[in-house]
Amino acid sequence: MESRNIRLAVIPGDGIGAEVVAEGLKVLEAVGTKIEPTHYDLGAARYHRTGETLPDAVLEELRGYDAILLGAVGDPSVPPGVLERDLLLRLRFAFDHYVNLRPVKLFPGVPTPLAGSSADDIDMIVVREGTEGLYAGTGGVMRRGTPHEIATQESLNTAHGVERVVRYAFEKARSRPRKKLTLVHKTNVLTYAGDLWQRTVDRVAGEYPDVATDYTHIDAASMFFVSQPERFDVVVTDNLFGDIITDLGAAIAGGIGMAASGNINPERTAPSMFEPVHGSAPDIAGQGKADPTATILSVAMLLDHLGLRAEAARVEQAVAADIVERRPGRSTHEIGDDITARVSG
Amino acid sequence: MESRNIRLAVIPGDGIGAEVVAEGLKVLEAVGTKIEPTHYDLGAARYHRTGETLPDAVLEELRGYDAILLGAVGDPSVPPGVLERDLLLRLRFAFDHYVNLRPVKLFPGVPTPLAGSSADDIDMIVVREGTEGLYAGTGGVMRRGTPHEIATQESLNTAHGVERVVRYAFEKARSRPRKKLTLVHKTNVLTYAGDLWQRTVDRVAGEYPDVATDYTHIDAASMFFVSQPERFDVVVTDNLFGDIITDLGAAIAGGIGMAASGNINPERTAPSMFEPVHGSAPDIAGQGKADPTATILSVAMLLDHLGLRAEAARVEQAVAADIVERRPGRSTHEIGDDITARVSG
Ligand SMILES: CC(C)[C@H](C(=O)O)[C@@H](O)C(=O)O
Ligand SMILES: CC(C)[C@H](C(=O)O)[C@@H](O)C(=O)O
Repeated sequence: MESRNIRLAVIPGDGIGAEVVAEGLKVLEAVGTKIEPTHYDLGAARYHRTGETLPDAVLEELRGYDAILLGAVGDPSVPPGVLERDLLLRLRFAFDHYVNLRPVKLFPGVPTPLAGSSADDIDMIVVREGTEGLYAGTGGVMRRGTPHEIATQESLNTAHGVERVVRYAFEKARSRPRKKLTLVHKTNVLTYAGDLWQRTVDRVAGEYPDVATDYTHIDAASMFFVSQPERFDVVVTDNLFGDIITDLGAAIAGGIGMAASGNINPERTAPSMFEPVHGSAPDIAGQGKADPTATILSVAMLLDHLGLRAEAARVEQAVAADIVERRPGRSTHEIGDDITARVSG
Repeated sequence: MESRNIRLAVIPGDGIGAEVVAEGLKVLEAVGTKIEPTHYDLGAARYHRTGETLPDAVLEELRGYDAILLGAVGDPSVPPGVLERDLLLRLRFAFDHYVNLRPVKLFPGVPTPLAGSSADDIDMIVVREGTEGLYAGTGGVMRRGTPHEIATQESLNTAHGVERVVRYAFEKARSRPRKKLTLVHKTNVLTYAGDLWQRTVDRVAGEYPDVATDYTHIDAASMFFVSQPERFDVVVTDNLFGDIITDLGAAIAGGIGMAASGNINPERTAPSMFEPVHGSAPDIAGQGKADPTATILSVAMLLDHLGLRAEAARVEQAVAADIVERRPGRSTHEIGDDITARVSG
């Protein structure tokens, strides 16, 4: 029996988004998946043309897909926060992407800026919460523009929201050879939220006696990412700490051109969304300079999420092989072509 | 005319605190300052003995000093947050230490974990806000311990609080050769607070046409600290982002054994407090393994704050010279003795 086609929504977005997404799709087709991509024009261009970021009807249409591939959104011509909040974060929230999965893995052959570390030392997965914390967007401003202005932001954390992502992280840790889970937070200052996170990890740990648990403050963790990355196997953390630490992770694992991510709805009540960690990089857009590797690795995560394990592995192996034999100065297209050739060959 | 003695309150604190503070005091005496130190027993030991963290009477007594030297507070035997909030943060708040000044400077001869960077590339000052943001401690918990628990934390930002630290940062930037100020925040997600910070920097920038200003998101900044630290000269940021990024700064600038800090009340309405960035490190306490350099550099900042510029420079130079001729494996005492000898000699 033929399996049905994968219905994929593609949101190239802004800047280099379209360039890297094109290479991701090339690889996706080459790996032999039956994929039916539909492109959605969302991002800065549409916002300027129509004032829309994500019309409700489009959001509901997207809900019907098997998965979403996103390039990058954001442009300096749009006020900060508009596209991020009304498009990217809205998708994460609407589709309950409570797991923001971000591997921090140094592929052999990729230069790391860390003098003392090698590929053996940098191999972790950050499980970042994706729907709560300071990303809730609550807060406000009073007496704006006066000397008496007050601006607030609120971090909202729920037992429901914390427990489900912590459970996911324990499952991940159990599936890996080292079976180690580190909670990263700032329990000594964010005492209410920190207490909820710490108690949740402690409680769920009882069900995972085979997983070793550990705690590190976010400030110390940032230091350890640089000085002792081998400390970490699976990291679970809140939305904002996860945002910071995964960019730092990208830096130590070969740069933002390599960092993949999945915004995952584990219960599959809505499509999961895969995107490179990098932004739209308007400064190099349209020049063929962007590295599509992060998007291609995000495609591997997408395949894995859809249960196409063998295909996912082939894409990852193609990337690993490509890195080892890298020719310097390749364009976005050339990198995509080289990896595509390996996947098909 | 003889100048009067410097009245110094000394809070050794917990763990390695007492060891590093002893070396700091040795250097302070050797540099020829007339100093009158008074020790205060505050920290985990006192907490366990009497249940007190910082009695009101002690707080008021401390207010009378010219400056405070603090080692480190915190111990695993005390619930997370108690000593941090009721002692360390209470001092910062009560004495209005709105500037938390943290140089990130790689001394020549100190190994950095960054393969591609040298002492020329890593020389910045982080001006961290010290009295607001998520450190306000506001927030709460509802239905604790139930599946319906909600825990919140609030970031409080005021025009008054942001403007004064931004002004201080502009002055700092003006005093340095590169005259560059970078605001680090997360304006695309923390839109209310980010807007206040960004507008304040933009407005005050008008008074500093000689200072170039720049903006970087906290996630990107964490990446750049590792990949392009030379981007930064003076960084101004909020309390939590500053906490994270200065530990990261310590990691790239030779480790936590080197990172100094000043909790500064620029108007001198209360004593400023100087402390190494590192914590109490209970795992190595009492073994003579702690590096007192961070405390000694904090002493240099203390001298500078008190207007003793020449003495401050002598301490910094002694540290720089000590590093170049470092013998490996020295104890806490030996490092202190070596630097003391250079300061006196
Ligand atoms: C663009 C921005 C809203 C986003 C985030 O903060 O989550 C990005 O930095 C990321 O990490 O995916
Ligand atoms: C101990 C802790 C409360 C403190 C902070 O978060 O400010 C420390 O990490 C620091 O940076 O001085």
